[in-house]
Amino acid sequence: MANKSSLDPIISLAKRRGFVFQAGEIYGGSRSAWDYGPLGVELKENIKRQWWQTFVRGRADMVGLDSAIILPTQVWEASGHVATFTDPLVESLHTHKRYRADHLIEAYTAKHGHPPENGLAGVKDPDTGQDGKWTEPQMFSGLMKTFLGPVDNEAGMHYMRPETAQGIFVNFNNVLTTSRKKPPFGIGQIGKAFRNEITPGNFIFRTREFEQMEIEFFTPPADADEWFKHWVDACWEWFVDLGIKPENLRKFDVPEEDRAHYSAGTIDVEYRFGFQGSEWGELMGIANRTDFDLNNHSNASGTELSYFNQASGERFTPYVIEPSFGLTRSMMAFLVDAYTEDEAPNAKGGVDKRTVLRLDPRIAPVKAAVLPLSRNEDLSPKARDLATALRKHWNIDFDDAGAIGRRYRRQDEIGTPFCITVDFDTLEDQAVTIRERDTMSQERVPLDKVEAYLAARLLGA
Amino acid sequence: MANKSSLDPIISLAKRRGFVFQAGEIYGGSRSAWDYGPLGVELKENIKRQWWQTFVRGRADMVGLDSAIILPTQVWEASGHVATFTDPLVESLHTHKRYRADHLIEAYTAKHGHPPENGLAGVKDPDTGQDGKWTEPQMFSGLMKTFLGPVDNEAGMHYMRPETAQGIFVNFNNVLTTSRKKPPFGIGQIGKAFRNEITPGNFIFRTREFEQMEIEFFTPPADADEWFKHWVDACWEWFVDLGIKPENLRKFDVPEEDRAHYSAGTIDVEYRFGFQGSEWGELMGIANRTDFDLNNHSNASGTELSYFNQASGERFTPYVIEPSFGLTRSMMAFLVDAYTEDEAPNAKGGVDKRTVLRLDPRIAPVKAAVLPLSRNEDLSPKARDLATALRKHWNIDFDDAGAIGRRYRRQDEIGTPFCITVDFDTLEDQAVTIRERDTMSQERVPLDKVEAYLAARLLGA
Repeated sequence: MANKSSLDPIISLAKRRGFVFQAGEIYGGSRSAWDYGPLGVELKENIKRQWWQTFVRGRADMVGLDSAIILPTQVWEASGHVATFTDPLVESLHTHKRYRADHLIEAYTAKHGHPPENGLAGVKDPDTGQDGKWTEPQMFSGLMKTFLGPVDNEAGMHYMRPETAQGIFVNFNNVLTTSRKKPPFGIGQIGKAFRNEITPGNFIFRTREFEQMEIEFFTPPADADEWFKHWVDACWEWFVDLGIKPENLRKFDVPEEDRAHYSAGTIDVEYRFGFQGSEWGELMGIANRTDFDLNNHSNASGTELSYFNQASGERFTPYVIEPSFGLTRSMMAFLVDAYTEDEAPNAKGGVDKRTVLRLDPRIAPVKAAVLPLSRNEDLSPKARDLATALRKHWNIDFDDAGAIGRRYRRQDEIGTPFCITVDFDTLEDQAVTIRERDTMSQERVPLDKVEAYLAARLLGA
Repeated sequence: MANKSSLDPIISLAKRRGFVFQAGEIYGGSRSAWDYGPLGVELKENIKRQWWQTFVRGRADMVGLDSAIILPTQVWEASGHVATFTDPLVESLHTHKRYRADHLIEAYTAKHGHPPENGLAGVKDPDTGQDGKWTEPQMFSGLMKTFLGPVDNEAGMHYMRPETAQGIFVNFNNVLTTSRKKPPFGIGQIGKAFRNEITPGNFIFRTREFEQMEIEFFTPPADADEWFKHWVDACWEWFVDLGIKPENLRKFDVPEEDRAHYSAGTIDVEYRFGFQGSEWGELMGIANRTDFDLNNHSNASGTELSYFNQASGERFTPYVIEPSFGLTRSMMAFLVDAYTEDEAPNAKGGVDKRTVLRLDPRIAPVKAAVLPLSRNEDLSPKARDLATALRKHWNIDFDDAGAIGRRYRRQDEIGTPFCITVDFDTLEDQAVTIRERDTMSQERVPLDKVEAYLAARLLGA
């Protein structure tokens, strides 16, 4: 766990190699969001694609959806968000900076092992270290507004969705009718959501603009507990199958008083991010939302949202099991879990330290790098032709700058599973050396077999 | 062209089969955006994937990016959007409804073949048909606002991006440094953008919330014209390669007075959507943005955004060629172009009308449907097992409801390239019948060869 004691090397690598940039950096940056660079966007897309394949395309009982970010205001009134999606906000009398009261207490509890005895009064100012002096908590809405139409007035005021889930609930009938599914079945969606967080932070962990991968699974009420267990296991398995070490995951059964207003049961899957103060952070949650949402939207819209079972002649409102993943949190967990430092032999017979992202090949941003041994008028064109051919299937890097050992190190630290070296023997034997990232083992492969070699090892990537 | 005279059958099909739903329909709906149902999200994702493969992953001179929707306000000041991203707005004195003055004049011109002689005074009220009485045009910002932080004041006011392009420009240095590219090279991005359109309409053609696929290609200024031509051709080819009929595409060289403020030359690629009044609509545009954006952001941020050519010892600010695609417009064009009505033999020896979406298999939402000839305790499990196996690779439908002819029709009208029928002979010969959508030809294929059969025909899908 030594390399998990701090996130700094991972954040530094992510910036240096083009995974993640601060949004609007040249203007001093925004704390609200991050930009995903050439490697980051590939990693993120690969995670989305794996999720979609596992949970949507790959299952007979699931379909997909992509609903709008801006929905009619009634959606958020009916869902309870306008009334209850609020957080307690306090201001430090020392600095006039604002904080979420619950976050201050959480941080204190994580550090001291128990909550502050005198409530907020016992919490020091995080900025100055002075004894805390706080205003009374005020409730503050996490919904972000925007205005449609020519005048910024009440009529044009709309909310940006704080979760993708509601776009699924309001389409329940549409999907039921057009997809010929019946409960138990689910709808999956990937998309952006916006929350006016008071204290964004911890790199890409908590941002105002973020991406979710959500499933709303509709089940007969009597089967809800069974499906809840199914989804807790399925979500856990997804992370482990894609390479997250089980010892860095844990389940947290959220006590009733801490659950969202709609939930009859929530299990959070937490990852050992290694934040300062609090090692673990919520990666995703599975909630039993009961018939809360479908009932609310039925009542508010006057549209019956229920299912009529023709076989039994019964009509029922399904219960909803919701696995809700943070996409950017998942990406951060995959990065943290893959980050390792070990040693590699160098050209002088000694060893060099190397940084390796041991990402599963299915999510690695670059699948293979083609490296001509040296910049040479025979080697370079041959290497470029190979890279061009492989690019028809995969994201391929080409690098001819510097010593081969340094180029291996550059690929190792971005998690490229295979390096393909075109050397002077290639001109004779029409073969290349393929080096595997984790074992550093090398194999000679005929040029015309490289595609098949990679295809067999990059299955599903 | 007979089936192109009206969009109604396509819009009706899109709603009935779950490609596109009105956003927030149960609450009366939103004119601002649409929701994409189970088939729509697959079609849209397939288009994105093809675009990304062709223009980003597949090219050595391109990388990808995913920047935030909410950027610092200075970005939109420097880009010129705050000052100039405005439209002339008029109000009808009859109905007090608001319209874009330029759209009223365009519609008049399309209908009459010439602009109105007396300006707006000659344009009738589109709602009532009365002689037009209009207010003076007022300039109105197309930028949508939102507020970050606890108070809705100037300091917290931010804009939602009206184009993805600026997120690319402000990351120019980040990408240059981390990706080791040098001009000519480009950055591609797919994502949502928001514009406060006064008159959204024509189905998914003009919406306030929409998706773009944009490329900013950075080139030495002297090579800008050559790259402009390259990109016009490459974009055109992409649509044609994916099945759009060339006779339904045309190029429009936008005259200087109609170009965006930043453009030294723009070619729009238009598609024959078949709108009422105006048959053709803009599908995408290629613009020569010169060094306008990099210079603006350099000046506003104080960060040099240029390229130093070590070989020649020269520093230059690249020109930018921008191919900008509307994703939802592209999806609409693929739907319209694929929509056909023809005849198919029926069981009684006659012919039935059939609707077919002749979508390229690479973008078809469902790649194959598995159909047990009848609901039967031997056939159904065999068919389900086959569907489960194929789902590891593709989006697969399973349908056992109704006559086989009706099930073929259902798959034809959503564009499924292959229908696989499991019949009673299957129990004996371990083979299935695979029917091709367009030719309706049928072929007997051994069960254990189905995966390879489809793989060979769904290359790149």
